[in-house]
Amino acid sequence: MAANTFGNIFCLTTFGESHGEAIGGIIDGCPSGLKLDMAFIQNELQRRKPGQSHITTQRKEDDEVKILSGVFNEITTGHPIGFIIENNNQKSKDYEHLKEVYRPSHADFTYQQKFGIRDYRGGGRSSARETASRIVGGAIAKLILNQYQISIQAYVSQVGTIKLEKPYTELNLSKTEESIIRCPDEEIANKMISYIEEIRKNGDTIGGIISCVIKGTPIGLGEPVFDKLHADLGKAMLSINAVKGFEYGAGFSSINYKGSELNDVFINEENKIKTKTNFSGGIQGGISNGEDIYFNVAFKPVATIMQEQLSVDMNGNATTVQGKGRHDPCVLPRAVPIVESMAALVIVDNLLKQRSATL
Amino acid sequence: MAANTFGNIFCLTTFGESHGEAIGGIIDGCPSGLKLDMAFIQNELQRRKPGQSHITTQRKEDDEVKILSGVFNEITTGHPIGFIIENNNQKSKDYEHLKEVYRPSHADFTYQQKFGIRDYRGGGRSSARETASRIVGGAIAKLILNQYQISIQAYVSQVGTIKLEKPYTELNLSKTEESIIRCPDEEIANKMISYIEEIRKNGDTIGGIISCVIKGTPIGLGEPVFDKLHADLGKAMLSINAVKGFEYGAGFSSINYKGSELNDVFINEENKIKTKTNFSGGIQGGISNGEDIYFNVAFKPVATIMQEQLSVDMNGNATTVQGKGRHDPCVLPRAVPIVESMAALVIVDNLLKQRSATL
Amino acid sequence: MAANTFGNIFCLTTFGESHGEAIGGIIDGCPSGLKLDMAFIQNELQRRKPGQSHITTQRKEDDEVKILSGVFNEITTGHPIGFIIENNNQKSKDYEHLKEVYRPSHADFTYQQKFGIRDYRGGGRSSARETASRIVGGAIAKLILNQYQISIQAYVSQVGTIKLEKPYTELNLSKTEESIIRCPDEEIANKMISYIEEIRKNGDTIGGIISCVIKGTPIGLGEPVFDKLHADLGKAMLSINAVKGFEYGAGFSSINYKGSELNDVFINEENKIKTKTNFSGGIQGGISNGEDIYFNVAFKPVATIMQEQLSVDMNGNATTVQGKGRHDPCVLPRAVPIVESMAALVIVDNLLKQRSATL
Amino acid sequence: MAANTFGNIFCLTTFGESHGEAIGGIIDGCPSGLKLDMAFIQNELQRRKPGQSHITTQRKEDDEVKILSGVFNEITTGHPIGFIIENNNQKSKDYEHLKEVYRPSHADFTYQQKFGIRDYRGGGRSSARETASRIVGGAIAKLILNQYQISIQAYVSQVGTIKLEKPYTELNLSKTEESIIRCPDEEIANKMISYIEEIRKNGDTIGGIISCVIKGTPIGLGEPVFDKLHADLGKAMLSINAVKGFEYGAGFSSINYKGSELNDVFINEENKIKTKTNFSGGIQGGISNGEDIYFNVAFKPVATIMQEQLSVDMNGNATTVQGKGRHDPCVLPRAVPIVESMAALVIVDNLLKQRSATL
Repeated sequence: MAANTFGNIFCLTTFGESHGEAIGGIIDGCPSGLKLDMAFIQNELQRRKPGQSHITTQRKEDDEVKILSGVFNEITTGHPIGFIIENNNQKSKDYEHLKEVYRPSHADFTYQQKFGIRDYRGGGRSSARETASRIVGGAIAKLILNQYQISIQAYVSQVGTIKLEKPYTELNLSKTEESIIRCPDEEIANKMISYIEEIRKNGDTIGGIISCVIKGTPIGLGEPVFDKLHADLGKAMLSINAVKGFEYGAGFSSINYKGSELNDVFINEENKIKTKTNFSGGIQGGISNGEDIYFNVAFKPVATIMQEQLSVDMNGNATTVQGKGRHDPCVLPRAVPIVESMAALVIVDNLLKQRSATL
Repeated sequence: MAANTFGNIFCLTTFGESHGEAIGGIIDGCPSGLKLDMAFIQNELQRRKPGQSHITTQRKEDDEVKILSGVFNEITTGHPIGFIIENNNQKSKDYEHLKEVYRPSHADFTYQQKFGIRDYRGGGRSSARETASRIVGGAIAKLILNQYQISIQAYVSQVGTIKLEKPYTELNLSKTEESIIRCPDEEIANKMISYIEEIRKNGDTIGGIISCVIKGTPIGLGEPVFDKLHADLGKAMLSINAVKGFEYGAGFSSINYKGSELNDVFINEENKIKTKTNFSGGIQGGISNGEDIYFNVAFKPVATIMQEQLSVDMNGNATTVQGKGRHDPCVLPRAVPIVESMAALVIVDNLLKQRSATL
Repeated sequence: MAANTFGNIFCLTTFGESHGEAIGGIIDGCPSGLKLDMAFIQNELQRRKPGQSHITTQRKEDDEVKILSGVFNEITTGHPIGFIIENNNQKSKDYEHLKEVYRPSHADFTYQQKFGIRDYRGGGRSSARETASRIVGGAIAKLILNQYQISIQAYVSQVGTIKLEKPYTELNLSKTEESIIRCPDEEIANKMISYIEEIRKNGDTIGGIISCVIKGTPIGLGEPVFDKLHADLGKAMLSINAVKGFEYGAGFSSINYKGSELNDVFINEENKIKTKTNFSGGIQGGISNGEDIYFNVAFKPVATIMQEQLSVDMNGNATTVQGKGRHDPCVLPRAVPIVESMAALVIVDNLLKQRSATL
Repeated sequence: MAANTFGNIFCLTTFGESHGEAIGGIIDGCPSGLKLDMAFIQNELQRRKPGQSHITTQRKEDDEVKILSGVFNEITTGHPIGFIIENNNQKSKDYEHLKEVYRPSHADFTYQQKFGIRDYRGGGRSSARETASRIVGGAIAKLILNQYQISIQAYVSQVGTIKLEKPYTELNLSKTEESIIRCPDEEIANKMISYIEEIRKNGDTIGGIISCVIKGTPIGLGEPVFDKLHADLGKAMLSINAVKGFEYGAGFSSINYKGSELNDVFINEENKIKTKTNFSGGIQGGISNGEDIYFNVAFKPVATIMQEQLSVDMNGNATTVQGKGRHDPCVLPRAVPIVESMAALVIVDNLLKQRSATL
């Protein structure tokens, strides 16, 4: 079962609460022989780090990962890679007022009901801090994908109603990291940033969409019938905090087209079978077809707001609750590397599975 | 790994190709003591059956399930329930022309590439016929849910651009089965039917949206952090043929609202903690909160159309391909019980998992 | 969880009771491209079949396997292989007297207590008839192993106190199938047979030891730390009905030697690193080292005897019980192919796992 | 797959090498509401600790466990329990000579061949130091078992040929911890100790048998057909370093008895159905029957000896190798809590599984 484990061959298990001693995880099933580029892994963590710009939370967390095992002379040994990230800048006092109150649309109520106990400090296990461990797993997965010339690039394509209308094929994705909102179109990016600044001033929060493109996937990844590649990707994305929807290829817009319009006709391009269009999003019958894989992930606004909201306490008495401390008005810029990490975990796992497909 | 198994405790494994001797499966982990209502199971299969109306494929398949084990005196014994559904009405000749040609947007190409071999008759394993086995698993899951007063009801809410705008709370879902399109609003249903008739005449296909509502789920189902309840539901839905997107609660529309607008405020209603609104879709922090769970599933148009399309053959030579035989112009009416079945499998599995949550 | 599934990549799931309609299973994860030699599979089933000689049960079961899926033009497609074996010669009346009585040392009592219900006919799910499905899985596994030049050969090395003292290295294992007891030494075989005849006359039963040798295993199979190759083999063997013990290499006799005596010294033989002795049984640190793997499996006498035994009924009243119908006085000759099958499942699964060990 | 994870519901994943920064693990699936008695957990670690007596290795390791998550106010929260044990007293120089040489019967050769790389310092991942993490998992499992009045007690019953002939029913197991060899019979214990002292003086090593008794197991644990309770126990024990064999109940000696002699007759004792004898070892049909569960585990002598042995280096050149540093002449006294821990993991996992057995 192991609900804190993701993957079947390349398996990431995470642990840790926001205000405990440390968070961390174990990667089991990483093949031996991989050079572990620690600078790259740490850099991926920086991309998720709080306080990275004025539109994110101002919490200061170092998020320094310490690898404890599975590596010898900088090379993976095939044994589990244990790692921890210490919790240093926790201000648990900011959460004392939540001890007996449930924040609307947060996990406070359901955690308490499910387990009969909850660590209310910083959201405990429900805190998005947990995703730092996913970044570590995803970064190692990316190092493997590098060797296969597979690249994963996510970006913010919508914040509230501010939308980047252009498809990814018309964007210069290498510009994504140049803006603090991680939108590759400078003009839209600036609009998004201004909007988030305004939202923050009002003590409110806003959601949006992260789009992701995977290039270079070989043909054949994905397992019929339940572990279709997009089903794995969908689960991966839906497991990220605040995600409300997932679509790939033409996605929900598929319903506006007829089969004759949406089918991706096969062509022979320089002795390689390709599709003329790519409404399928690089996956047909649950299996990668060699075209670009692309998908969208919808994030709701963060539940914790700085405005006063009605709620109830653990005894069912009416009360109010108001966010304290340092929270994100919009998680999207920091969620970009998380989306990439989860995608990387899925692709590596399926790459390894594919090794058993044929005799 | 077992990519043809769904679930962790209540596990459905399916086998079978469209034109083989039989399809079927094994349900492992069904608790003992359940009265197996065979009439109900068979009736669920009828809802998915081809040829049930003039807007579905005209193939005649009996889809009669035979239970082979795991039941004694009509009661489940706790042992695996093996079952088969024979393939009787196969016309493999209808598929001879596909032996060496890849249908656009179908699984022909990817299956061939992944495995180096494929059963081209009727789509082989990629055929939606496989979902009949899911219906059997789902029907047994529903029998368990009945005992917990949990009900699952799906319906067609959109076909092409014809959309049922009303939310489920304003619909009489008990009317769903009254129309052959399985849309509970008579007027919209008729429009959808007319539209599908037109699509069929043109030898084309069309997709749409199935919405699903789960009522009566106890608080506490779903497992942080990777096996969030909606992540399990999303994977379940995305594993169904032709599905391109999944959203739950406010879904993709969440991005149009601020946190202050979208948060579900807690209230005390007759000594029960409830939420005033339900944008969360009954799931918070990945765990059911006792409110209705609702979600949408987007289906693309069926890939096989009766029009001639450009394609290539296995040697990469340009050719054309045209659907023969008996195909669905729109899978949605038959997919309604499949969506329900997959949802039932997820809920039962999580109900059983929940038994281990606390000491 | 799936307690009726064995294996991680090459997965066998079985279903079926002794007196139901059929038993069978699904093999998920069989690589595509394997020629499925049906004659070989059926022949393996004959080796386990009841009534094969006068020292086994005289029940007549055809044990004819029907493959339902996963194969196209006799080649595996990479999709699940569903199969059934019909139950034809069941005489349920022979078991009416067991409806409310617990046979000593049988599964009657524990099944009833665990599940609150049990199919008492022929032992239901606890019947060794279930192992016929394992033979099918094992036979397909053997077909894969053939391609790797890996062979598995089990034989009866002890019945009661009649023991084959020679190690396997001094035996001609190709003679195993020549005797109905499946002991490769003719003289000992005959003693065993006479002894079983005598045991049967007394309405009693007897156990013994099956030894098994696996030749040709490549270096590197087995996964630290929990899935050591011998741990997988041990679990596989202990899951067979009536097995009470497992040892590999020097096994329990290891305790009689000092490290200096038992260590297998490495030597270089024609540019290949080998061990001079093989007390390790071909596995070091849980991983195959290329030497022969060998192990012993201890079987207790069959629980069902033809003598009257004291027992209690379901209400706890003292009573007696006596076997009726057709039972084995000694399961060992029929268990030889079961031991081989389970070993084959383990080795194939680990062969496929090994494909992910290195980058 | 996750070969470093043990268990299905209560899952222990371990990481770490002997000479890395730390070892540790994650326990996922521990129910919420358990008071985590840290003194007990630490005490269990002391029982495994090196240097605890003059007959064990003289290495000094503190083996202090730090719990990093999953606990709030000393109570488990239902979230993963991450923990580490730092490696402090490593003397890697003692292992420089092993960089290119394979110790006979150790994991050096197979690890190198399987992964193409190995951490030779202190045996790396193959070091029994890994079992300290199992002790942590097992100790937490024992805390759960305490609540069910289930107790597990292992003891050394044989060292070389010095054997404790009495069955456990005639021993006072509470005396086990009184002797440094962990044998409850004082006289035999002293003989064992003297023998180990002699073995050590000769730079040699010796193995033996650990017996284990589980009392208080409820009826019904264990899952047909592959996850029989004794199959789970067997795998657990065989996954411990140096184990060569496992038997339960009458075990290998079953072969010396007829069915009429070995069957455990049922009796009614004060309105409770019991067995008169217990050759079954508390498990029938793979399911616990409420009687004591007992089993034996055979350990070979430690591979690393202080005598010079012939071997080869990584290039296949003949050489010699001799243990340096601080090694155990006999692992049995320190392995007693490991056997108990693995047994506890199995029983807790099956207790939780049993919650899903019936409707």
